[in-house]
Amino acid sequence: MTEENQESQHTNLEEKLQKVIYLLHKYKLVDGLVRLQEDQRHHLANSIVQKQNFAGLQNMLDKLHSADIARILEALPLEDRLILWRMVTSERDGEVLLEVSDAVRQTLIEDMESHELVAAAEQLDANEIADLAPDLPSDVIEGVFRALPMEERDQLRAAMSYPEDSVGALMDFDVITVREDVRIEVVLRYLRRLGELPDHTDQLFVIDREEHFKGVLRLNQLLVNDPEKIISDVMSRETIKFHPDNKAEEATQAFERYDLISAPVITPDQKLLARLTVNDVIDFMRERADLEARNQAGLSEEEDLFAPVWKSVHNRWAWLAINLITAFIASRVIGLFEDSIEKLVALAALMPIVASVGGNSGNQTITMIVRAIALGQINLESSMYKLIAKEIGVSIINGIIWGSVVGLFTYALYQNYQLGLLIALAMLLNLLLAALVGVLIPLIRKKLGRDPALGSSVMITAVTDSGGFFIFLGLATWFLL
Amino acid sequence: MTEENQESQHTNLEEKLQKVIYLLHKYKLVDGLVRLQEDQRHHLANSIVQKQNFAGLQNMLDKLHSADIARILEALPLEDRLILWRMVTSERDGEVLLEVSDAVRQTLIEDMESHELVAAAEQLDANEIADLAPDLPSDVIEGVFRALPMEERDQLRAAMSYPEDSVGALMDFDVITVREDVRIEVVLRYLRRLGELPDHTDQLFVIDREEHFKGVLRLNQLLVNDPEKIISDVMSRETIKFHPDNKAEEATQAFERYDLISAPVITPDQKLLARLTVNDVIDFMRERADLEARNQAGLSEEEDLFAPVWKSVHNRWAWLAINLITAFIASRVIGLFEDSIEKLVALAALMPIVASVGGNSGNQTITMIVRAIALGQINLESSMYKLIAKEIGVSIINGIIWGSVVGLFTYALYQNYQLGLLIALAMLLNLLLAALVGVLIPLIRKKLGRDPALGSSVMITAVTDSGGFFIFLGLATWFLL
Repeated sequence: MTEENQESQHTNLEEKLQKVIYLLHKYKLVDGLVRLQEDQRHHLANSIVQKQNFAGLQNMLDKLHSADIARILEALPLEDRLILWRMVTSERDGEVLLEVSDAVRQTLIEDMESHELVAAAEQLDANEIADLAPDLPSDVIEGVFRALPMEERDQLRAAMSYPEDSVGALMDFDVITVREDVRIEVVLRYLRRLGELPDHTDQLFVIDREEHFKGVLRLNQLLVNDPEKIISDVMSRETIKFHPDNKAEEATQAFERYDLISAPVITPDQKLLARLTVNDVIDFMRERADLEARNQAGLSEEEDLFAPVWKSVHNRWAWLAINLITAFIASRVIGLFEDSIEKLVALAALMPIVASVGGNSGNQTITMIVRAIALGQINLESSMYKLIAKEIGVSIINGIIWGSVVGLFTYALYQNYQLGLLIALAMLLNLLLAALVGVLIPLIRKKLGRDPALGSSVMITAVTDSGGFFIFLGLATWFLL
Repeated sequence: MTEENQESQHTNLEEKLQKVIYLLHKYKLVDGLVRLQEDQRHHLANSIVQKQNFAGLQNMLDKLHSADIARILEALPLEDRLILWRMVTSERDGEVLLEVSDAVRQTLIEDMESHELVAAAEQLDANEIADLAPDLPSDVIEGVFRALPMEERDQLRAAMSYPEDSVGALMDFDVITVREDVRIEVVLRYLRRLGELPDHTDQLFVIDREEHFKGVLRLNQLLVNDPEKIISDVMSRETIKFHPDNKAEEATQAFERYDLISAPVITPDQKLLARLTVNDVIDFMRERADLEARNQAGLSEEEDLFAPVWKSVHNRWAWLAINLITAFIASRVIGLFEDSIEKLVALAALMPIVASVGGNSGNQTITMIVRAIALGQINLESSMYKLIAKEIGVSIINGIIWGSVVGLFTYALYQNYQLGLLIALAMLLNLLLAALVGVLIPLIRKKLGRDPALGSSVMITAVTDSGGFFIFLGLATWFLL
């Protein structure tokens, strides 16, 4: 590299560093999040900008939590992101890769050599490697596999064998086990020898010689009981436990309801396999919420904010295509009544009102029902009929109220009372349709074993649009023309 | 009560009990959630049904976690719900009231006498009473207040004084404090005397004589260190702490990122006030996610699945009214072009396609931006321009692709190539509008200090509907007719 090149690159870098430092400041504003002292940060920031002190930035990055580095990487456009990424000390590459979103992770991985990726993965636990695995090239995974000790290889294989939304995909293997026939004193000495406990250790797991799960020993019990007591006298035998193929969503609800911090994961033959921690559960909840928000809006995958345009187009393609099909159908429904519209053009201006209010009302119903299914509130046949009756009742009242409003609006505009009556009736019918379909779509999808929420908004809107146009234009054609 | 009355009530009750028992079974199917042994449950269920063994049901209820009772209450229609509610032992009324949703809580509270409510609230901690307070009649709150010891009164006052979305509204007062100049041995003896530690105690809080917060002492440190060591040598001084008026959402993100179980809440003058636990944070996350789903669908409040019809109508009223106004506006935009539609009625059939695809695409953009704002990814001016440029790029490509598809469809249907070109152009323009407004709405709302997400879907759809109709019909009027 020539000197000139180096010079210009430095000026460029300085600009980028200022951005990074700005972001560091920005993110440290909340007092609660301060890990560095305020003056330390100022000093570091100044020394970096003034002296182009790269070692200073490195020092600063080293003091940040991996999650914070991940956050800053996500907020930077691609080019700047890679400059900062290369400054992150390689021992922390693995941790940072775990913390960033899938979309951003891909951009970072593309920037790394295979041997760097293998080195990064080796610093992680088996369950963490399993989380990264879908994004890693196959030669890297093989490399990691060869480098792992036998026990961890088995764990990695186990963790990778469960579907993404199962407990098996979330569990970790950081369990500390004890026997039930020893004294607390012995356990205390054992822990002191270990020197450090895994994060989120609120309890130890009690197993027998064949690794069968016997119960849990909460750290609290270790602390408040006489050290001479035997473990079997202070452990809890009735505890909440999971199988690796339980649904992650069910585990999440159990953690929420019973305020758990960790729970054992056991095999069908009652052997202790791993544990699930509240931290895994929170991550799952967040990912799930993101997924739902994306599905609602019609985004197929997580999207890097600074993804190239063509990637974003690809991500949004599928749902736009579905939307286009439903719009075509609605258009053809209107096409059926072109003669009527030609005779009374006011129909064209009024028809979107019927469709739109129906769509909104249907979305309200479907959201209620999807949520009730998720919380397990709909189990009895009798509840189901009660619900349908209720939603129909709501839609009749809404139909009468809003139908009258729209009817009066129509009369005021077009001085045609027949048209006013007709649109009021069409509103009522479309709201009834919305209520019925809004209850039935999620219930039927649930019966078929599908996710009741996925694409529900698109489906209900398709029904209320085409249905609304058909009802309104059909009624007009029959009674008015 | 006459004997006959009692008889018929019993038969009715038996039916209802069977329902309850069915639900109990249903909810215990996941092995992980079993607290009762399988055979115990069967035995209980049978004895209740056969002998109308109310004591048996009571026994069963007593063994269930309060969160499970809450869940069953939520799944039962109002009448059945109250029968079960009256069977719950009064010592657990408070806990169950805490666990149910706001809407269901109101139905339970309406069924209770003032003195029962006071008794229920008295069993709770100050921070828990503060959570219930908005739903309690004022005479009950006064009664509770009088019954509390002085210290808890102060705590209750403190907890009630912070807004719902602040750390102060989530914190609890179950802190165990120690001094930094004592030996581990002394702390261990102290804990043994306490006999039990509050839930989610992963660390003790170190304070000085004036209650100033000095740092935390993790239970792990107590266990793995030599009992002769002094606390100041093993405690952590740099830790994440919160102020009671920090935003709850920020605290949530910190818990997620740094994998916290508990964290200290301190006053501006550095005194230890309370703590925040992962359990409070999870509850907040769930409530927040529910709120967002409701806002998306246009529901104002949490709605009891079995709420009376008129209550549901009231809950859904506001957003339907807003929707109606935007639909009226769109209708008037179409009204402007009635002459054109009369001349070329195909316009009426085609115009919803332009509006609908624009709405979907705009929702995709706005969802991306709202999420990026929530994660703090948009802070730099330069990022903002990059984002706008990217979204415009995406909409141009989408406009060309989908515009061509719709143009060809139109040509195939109406054999009018001008109309095909025109709708393709209108699609492109409406997608551009959707991208621009989809980026700007949330950014402007954020600048104004508002919630970028609230009602964003309604707003973008209003713009793309009216805008889509205007662009398409306007272009047709100018160029085609």
